[in-house]
Amino acid sequence: MKSIIADLIADNGADLHHLIYSDDDYKHLSESLIGATEETTTGATRLRESIKCSDFPTFSINDTLTKRIVENRFGVGSSVVDGIMRATNVMLHGKRIVVIGYGYCGAGVAQRLRGMGAHVTVVERDALTRLEAHLEGFRTSLLEDCLSTAEIVITVTGYDNILRKEHFEKMQSGTIIANAGHFATEIDVAVLSDLSESKREIRQEITEYILPSNRRIFLVSNGNLVNLAAGDGNPIEIMDLGLALQSLSLKLLVEDGTSFKNGVQPVPRDVEQYVAQHAVKHWIE
Amino acid sequence: MKSIIADLIADNGADLHHLIYSDDDYKHLSESLIGATEETTTGATRLRESIKCSDFPTFSINDTLTKRIVENRFGVGSSVVDGIMRATNVMLHGKRIVVIGYGYCGAGVAQRLRGMGAHVTVVERDALTRLEAHLEGFRTSLLEDCLSTAEIVITVTGYDNILRKEHFEKMQSGTIIANAGHFATEIDVAVLSDLSESKREIRQEITEYILPSNRRIFLVSNGNLVNLAAGDGNPIEIMDLGLALQSLSLKLLVEDGTSFKNGVQPVPRDVEQYVAQHAVKHWIE
Amino acid sequence: MKSIIADLIADNGADLHHLIYSDDDYKHLSESLIGATEETTTGATRLRESIKCSDFPTFSINDTLTKRIVENRFGVGSSVVDGIMRATNVMLHGKRIVVIGYGYCGAGVAQRLRGMGAHVTVVERDALTRLEAHLEGFRTSLLEDCLSTAEIVITVTGYDNILRKEHFEKMQSGTIIANAGHFATEIDVAVLSDLSESKREIRQEITEYILPSNRRIFLVSNGNLVNLAAGDGNPIEIMDLGLALQSLSLKLLVEDGTSFKNGVQPVPRDVEQYVAQHAVKHWIE
Amino acid sequence: MKSIIADLIADNGADLHHLIYSDDDYKHLSESLIGATEETTTGATRLRESIKCSDFPTFSINDTLTKRIVENRFGVGSSVVDGIMRATNVMLHGKRIVVIGYGYCGAGVAQRLRGMGAHVTVVERDALTRLEAHLEGFRTSLLEDCLSTAEIVITVTGYDNILRKEHFEKMQSGTIIANAGHFATEIDVAVLSDLSESKREIRQEITEYILPSNRRIFLVSNGNLVNLAAGDGNPIEIMDLGLALQSLSLKLLVEDGTSFKNGVQPVPRDVEQYVAQHAVKHWIE
Repeated sequence: MKSIIADLIADNGADLHHLIYSDDDYKHLSESLIGATEETTTGATRLRESIKCSDFPTFSINDTLTKRIVENRFGVGSSVVDGIMRATNVMLHGKRIVVIGYGYCGAGVAQRLRGMGAHVTVVERDALTRLEAHLEGFRTSLLEDCLSTAEIVITVTGYDNILRKEHFEKMQSGTIIANAGHFATEIDVAVLSDLSESKREIRQEITEYILPSNRRIFLVSNGNLVNLAAGDGNPIEIMDLGLALQSLSLKLLVEDGTSFKNGVQPVPRDVEQYVAQHAVKHWIE
Repeated sequence: MKSIIADLIADNGADLHHLIYSDDDYKHLSESLIGATEETTTGATRLRESIKCSDFPTFSINDTLTKRIVENRFGVGSSVVDGIMRATNVMLHGKRIVVIGYGYCGAGVAQRLRGMGAHVTVVERDALTRLEAHLEGFRTSLLEDCLSTAEIVITVTGYDNILRKEHFEKMQSGTIIANAGHFATEIDVAVLSDLSESKREIRQEITEYILPSNRRIFLVSNGNLVNLAAGDGNPIEIMDLGLALQSLSLKLLVEDGTSFKNGVQPVPRDVEQYVAQHAVKHWIE
Repeated sequence: MKSIIADLIADNGADLHHLIYSDDDYKHLSESLIGATEETTTGATRLRESIKCSDFPTFSINDTLTKRIVENRFGVGSSVVDGIMRATNVMLHGKRIVVIGYGYCGAGVAQRLRGMGAHVTVVERDALTRLEAHLEGFRTSLLEDCLSTAEIVITVTGYDNILRKEHFEKMQSGTIIANAGHFATEIDVAVLSDLSESKREIRQEITEYILPSNRRIFLVSNGNLVNLAAGDGNPIEIMDLGLALQSLSLKLLVEDGTSFKNGVQPVPRDVEQYVAQHAVKHWIE
Repeated sequence: MKSIIADLIADNGADLHHLIYSDDDYKHLSESLIGATEETTTGATRLRESIKCSDFPTFSINDTLTKRIVENRFGVGSSVVDGIMRATNVMLHGKRIVVIGYGYCGAGVAQRLRGMGAHVTVVERDALTRLEAHLEGFRTSLLEDCLSTAEIVITVTGYDNILRKEHFEKMQSGTIIANAGHFATEIDVAVLSDLSESKREIRQEITEYILPSNRRIFLVSNGNLVNLAAGDGNPIEIMDLGLALQSLSLKLLVEDGTSFKNGVQPVPRDVEQYVAQHAVKHWIE
């Protein structure tokens, strides 16, 4: 194989970083690279925790406040509403919806569902964050106390197996469950399947699980991210913003790469400000 | 007494109409009057049900959609929030507030309290109106089911003795109760007093009733209309609107009085439109 | 043809009523029918204005407050948001959206779009209704004053040719236009086509019209009702409600048909109350 | 003077810290003190920038997320609405209000005013923060572009002389101006006075400044903090929270004071969590 030559990496999920540190054909890049960007949270975590890349600077796009606010709070908030409506065609007005997790994404989801007339209850373990949700006007509750009256339950936590056996057992017949967290692991689908006597796809993206006593639970998109699986993914405006952060970060590395320490690090504040200023100019003014 | 001469009456509470039909000194006016206006609901009801005035046209200002929307929904909505905040200085965010009645006034009160971050539960007997509140995003409940967790209870029904013995007995200690309905009769204060071992004014406009077992209920403004008693009454913008309706109605009577039937009747739609157009012109454009 | 025998009609669009009064084969039914229901506004209008049916009672389902609130305000409000999101995949947050018309449907659309973070401007000719929108927190404007900065324009008026030549000429390049009114006639598509140098479908349900100077206007669903064309139509909850009104109306006709006058008329209030009570029972309690 | 003995200081505005470093009678305390708390932002800034206290640990209460969210966003948000309503008795619905500054306090103020039906425009210099306000549904603008149509202008920036000569000159007659920022210096009252031909108090807390051509500007509470000057200050719930943070910080210092570095520092996260958990327990569960 001919030797690859590269000055910059625009990575997504840290797969290219991984290649460099695991495949001899790419190893030499660790020395020649000026720097890199990594788009995702997952990638940033891999870089920090397993790859431990430290030979060149890597800017973590997802850690920017810009992305957290624009993409996580507002983008995910509305695309989850979109995904749920497309997948289920249920009326959100007046529906009792439990949102588990009140981080940037969860807060966005809760806010938009309320904006559609739903009765949202927030479940959040961190006391201060729960207090914030409460003062923001949301009912808050322990998960076990609100499951039996919920009509829709959405996980947005970033943790595995948030909905488990004991939760499926408490849900009333007809409950719709969906995941809007980072991975398809927040709902324990295997256990739901074990508990069920049968299952069938009753509408695109909706699987009906029939539990004993004919109790039915409707799983959206097999527990995959509802906004991506049942919707169209991120709107173009949000992609614009992420790509602007990425390309300006790479430009800065070319122009001034030696002034940054090696390893994963935040996007420089100037780059964020520049992108935000352009968003203000083109979206607002 | 010298004989009173009058062409028009601008009445408030139907007291002048009452005089004409009950006092010989004013009787002759029933023949000479071109017409009248009546500002209040109470007055319109008296005219319809007891005075049965039918010798000249009387326009009922309070029946206009203009007044219902501008004064009842928006005006009362915000002045009740104002009154409650002034009287109690409690933080409305996250407070569990029960609003009894979801007419124009009640809907306005519920909407504004939600706008301040409160957790509002609506109690409404009419099924269709309750359905509307539910779809608007409000929890709805029977009164008996939400009293024991309420922190503030507000009556806005137009009926007497909405809060009675059985309700006071269910309230938790510390509950604040207030009335925003038409009369000071929606809370049965006499019964609350009987149930109590003592009472004292603990802050201007707030009376603390101490019930057995040291359970305390805080009554705002002795059950009088909280927006008037604890606040400043209607903002000038709302007075403007009512007075415009009144004076234009009188002008129309002078110019074209004979074209109206006698008795209580709605303000002609042209007058309402004219006032609304001027409000649009001066408030908006 | 064998003679048709029927006791009741559940009509939709007044087509069956039309047959009876225009086709000799069905004429005899006008004498034998106990009564009928008509589901749509269009049908009720046909019955009142052209068919002038007066041989049996016909209950107009669409005139019920239940349908107006549940379907028009809440149902249409959310399904328009759904349709727009599916068709365009644009981010609604911060978008400058003009909603033309603030009746039950338009108010619902404006409310939901605001709930999704959009910057909504309402255009409404009736002064009192405009005042209501203004006090509800919406910017209001004349159409000609807000078109040049709008990013999305939605018609919800019930009238023809609301968006015409002079409006297309004022829109900035990139404006998205959609119709959520009763018929596909609110946007004058023929004129838009005439003004354009070319057009092409750039995404399912989106046609790009390219006007001189490369100015582009994006028409959603060819001007058809965006919630039906680009979405899934009414949620099942709303169909439930309409069908309940219909079937209970027919039941009442069978049981007590002779007590109603002939011709189009509102659904009796008892039927509405009964349906609302059941909705409260099954959706809320 | 007899020598003061003290183990702990609960300071407010850093006045006690200042005494220790400026007055020989208190100097000895710098050695005997276990530690201190400082309640305010002002105090924390003095400690960091001028007093440079470094002989014992001082926990800065105001830097806690608890206080920022509960007091600044929610507490100030609603008390400013309260203060404005009490001082002016104007109807907030439909009012064009400019909020300058979108930090924790400004965002809270903007949110609550919108909750009351006002048409809020946010002015914010930081591009990312402005973008956030925009996506949250607020119109955003440069100050010079929105002043001429504003009906109420509120400063919440933390900076001096935000409203200056050029701004007063742009305001329309009748504009109400108020300050909700940290100090009474955000509105340049001296300049407003110079520009005016006369002034008079027209209502408690409202001064009318009459400028040439009879243009009038209404200043609320002489530019002092409108929530404190025209309202009742912080609700008891918020005082509870601040005092809990203070007393638990002092307790921790007594129990474990030597484990903290000297100088101003954040309240330990455990203390915040503990207070938040208790707020959740007593306010919510």
